[in-house]
Amino acid sequence: MSTSTPGTRADFEYLDQRDELRSSRERFDLPEGEIYLDGNSLGAMPAHIPARIEKVIKQEWAHGLIRSWNDADWYPAPQRTGAKIAGLIGAQGHEVIVADSTSINLFKVLVAATRLRPGRRVILAERGNFPTDVYIADGVAELTGNQLRCVEPDDILDALDEEVAIVSLTHVNFKSGKRYDMARITERAHAVGALVVWDLCHSAGAMPIALNEVNADFAVGCGYKYLNGGPGAPAFVFVAERHIPHMRQPITGWHGHAKPFDFDHHFRPHPSIGRMLAGTAPQLGVLALEAALEVFDDVDLNALRQKSVALGDLFISLCDQQLAGLGVELRSPRDGEQRGSQVSLAHEQAYAVMQALIARGIVGDFRAPDILRFGFAPLYIRYVDIWDSVVALREILEQKEWDRPEFLARKSVT
Amino acid sequence: MSTSTPGTRADFEYLDQRDELRSSRERFDLPEGEIYLDGNSLGAMPAHIPARIEKVIKQEWAHGLIRSWNDADWYPAPQRTGAKIAGLIGAQGHEVIVADSTSINLFKVLVAATRLRPGRRVILAERGNFPTDVYIADGVAELTGNQLRCVEPDDILDALDEEVAIVSLTHVNFKSGKRYDMARITERAHAVGALVVWDLCHSAGAMPIALNEVNADFAVGCGYKYLNGGPGAPAFVFVAERHIPHMRQPITGWHGHAKPFDFDHHFRPHPSIGRMLAGTAPQLGVLALEAALEVFDDVDLNALRQKSVALGDLFISLCDQQLAGLGVELRSPRDGEQRGSQVSLAHEQAYAVMQALIARGIVGDFRAPDILRFGFAPLYIRYVDIWDSVVALREILEQKEWDRPEFLARKSVT
Repeated sequence: MSTSTPGTRADFEYLDQRDELRSSRERFDLPEGEIYLDGNSLGAMPAHIPARIEKVIKQEWAHGLIRSWNDADWYPAPQRTGAKIAGLIGAQGHEVIVADSTSINLFKVLVAATRLRPGRRVILAERGNFPTDVYIADGVAELTGNQLRCVEPDDILDALDEEVAIVSLTHVNFKSGKRYDMARITERAHAVGALVVWDLCHSAGAMPIALNEVNADFAVGCGYKYLNGGPGAPAFVFVAERHIPHMRQPITGWHGHAKPFDFDHHFRPHPSIGRMLAGTAPQLGVLALEAALEVFDDVDLNALRQKSVALGDLFISLCDQQLAGLGVELRSPRDGEQRGSQVSLAHEQAYAVMQALIARGIVGDFRAPDILRFGFAPLYIRYVDIWDSVVALREILEQKEWDRPEFLARKSVT
Repeated sequence: MSTSTPGTRADFEYLDQRDELRSSRERFDLPEGEIYLDGNSLGAMPAHIPARIEKVIKQEWAHGLIRSWNDADWYPAPQRTGAKIAGLIGAQGHEVIVADSTSINLFKVLVAATRLRPGRRVILAERGNFPTDVYIADGVAELTGNQLRCVEPDDILDALDEEVAIVSLTHVNFKSGKRYDMARITERAHAVGALVVWDLCHSAGAMPIALNEVNADFAVGCGYKYLNGGPGAPAFVFVAERHIPHMRQPITGWHGHAKPFDFDHHFRPHPSIGRMLAGTAPQLGVLALEAALEVFDDVDLNALRQKSVALGDLFISLCDQQLAGLGVELRSPRDGEQRGSQVSLAHEQAYAVMQALIARGIVGDFRAPDILRFGFAPLYIRYVDIWDSVVALREILEQKEWDRPEFLARKSVT
């Protein structure tokens, strides 16, 4: 690719002019003069969110009060929002629901899945997965008398055997941006009788996902990254139709009951995906997420993916060209097909380098110990942002601009 | 009390004039011309919420973006908000944190508590507790190999024996409004070596609670009832200081880790109450709840409780006077000391009667099969609201105003 890399800022401006997703950027309220490459950590704000939330608060809450659970359709919002997400991940509307956090949904799904494979004892996971996934799996293993087996990404298929009850993986790795072949792993796991849980935190909203096409069992994912639902937005959970009637998740709260407002003494799970709910849904968050999903209306997910890969490919090519000899190493797959929507670079002073970039209005993030992470949310990142970011990075590295006390001093980072 | 019940609307207006909490009503945005007696289901909106949330959305999210986790102090919001709630429930600031929903927090606490009493096998609960409490306890019992023992409220003390690991009770019953003697039950449970979990959903924010004075172990509670945090506001959890280092809750998500952003491979619980967190906090909800708690600034909780009891006593006295022979039966304790901040009446057409009241702008709620529930949130309910509600109820019952198709037809209720 590097032979054909555009060589001037004007070339990147031209790519933006030809970008069929160009107008989707206008659906967001972005800070002026900044380049935001951290939509894989907290998505940007869709511009219509303030008006929607103002209505939720000033009318539906303040004046509708308790009636709004029915009259403003709050009650079915988790199902309705789940159905919208289903369209982005290749699921049927009734297979997805919005609830709680990714960690909690993963906990529910893992416990329920172990109950579907009572004769087996192993949860298979990737050692370098996002920590919460490993922590939760470890906690579930302890609680349910199972065993967590962690291996390297390339060893997943070899580690599959008939002891494995569940494979729990993140589709796109949070650090490297490397993407698993979902179809292949799901097929091979099924071949040994295991079930698969996919964490879609770093892929939902950034590319088309074909859960039903690959015969997926379960998935969870985040509402606040590429889905732009706002800070701590509720998460989602997918259960394939064939598993729903058998899913017995352990947090048996009233909103997962067949008839929550009958106030029965005994728990009977809802016949639908509703059984994955526990307590009352965090409505402000659910309604913000529901509204946020409108930015995907009429978006061609294949075009979205194409742009995402192009942004990453161009970023890598420019880095090759401009950062040679400056101590930077690529930590993401060079092949766009194997990547999610982010590119990670390693630098021994990654923390300070990122602080220097942020000081210039280019916001990516740092992941310990040495990773500079750049997320390209294709709905609002421009081609010219790629050019400007790499040029800024070159200047910072060439001039050792990162070597200042205010950049070197660590504060807590998220 | 009934001998001294004020007999005219003017008498109730006079009580409002003398009410030292009168001005706190102005801190809320309430629907004009309505009487809202359902603050025990969804609290009214504090008037300053829209401005706070607008700032969170338009500035902190849209323009601060990921930096707001540090720069806008989002990250410590669950601890900060928990510390504010601690002041309302007799706890130390570092013993309370805001997280998830009541159901999920109860699940975490119950599992952690069973781990503190490994030799015992019984979770003792009240049969008529709010369903989610019983469902969750049942789910935990199944998951952890324990047994759920449900008894009537008056039989709790007799059911305490050395098999009991945990007593799980709601301080104020959601249906009857009956309040347990927290000090006595906690003491007797400790005497047999059991731990106690108190659900404060129907008491936090409606009366002073003295968790540490009664030597309480654990508590959970709701953010959206008397704490006015908004629909589906996050819940809180209290762990007594002496138990925190030993609490091993099962949903081991990254936000409960000692160093979440070190991305360690192994889970080590945070040394503080922070270990009760799992995933990313639902920030819109947490920040709304934090702001909502300002309505309690400078409020004397003893005066709050006095007013709450007075409102309930007057409601009952007026019902005695005005509803005799109209098919209504009191289902709450007559003694204010034994009540929370609600009064429940039974009527065989309770559903339709409540619909008729709501049509007149008097909003309480219905609980199956036959309960009319009236909550008196003392910060915004006036004495004159009591008079007007009972007069309206009398007219509805005398004229059988409830006997209309639109009131009799059930829709889903929350």
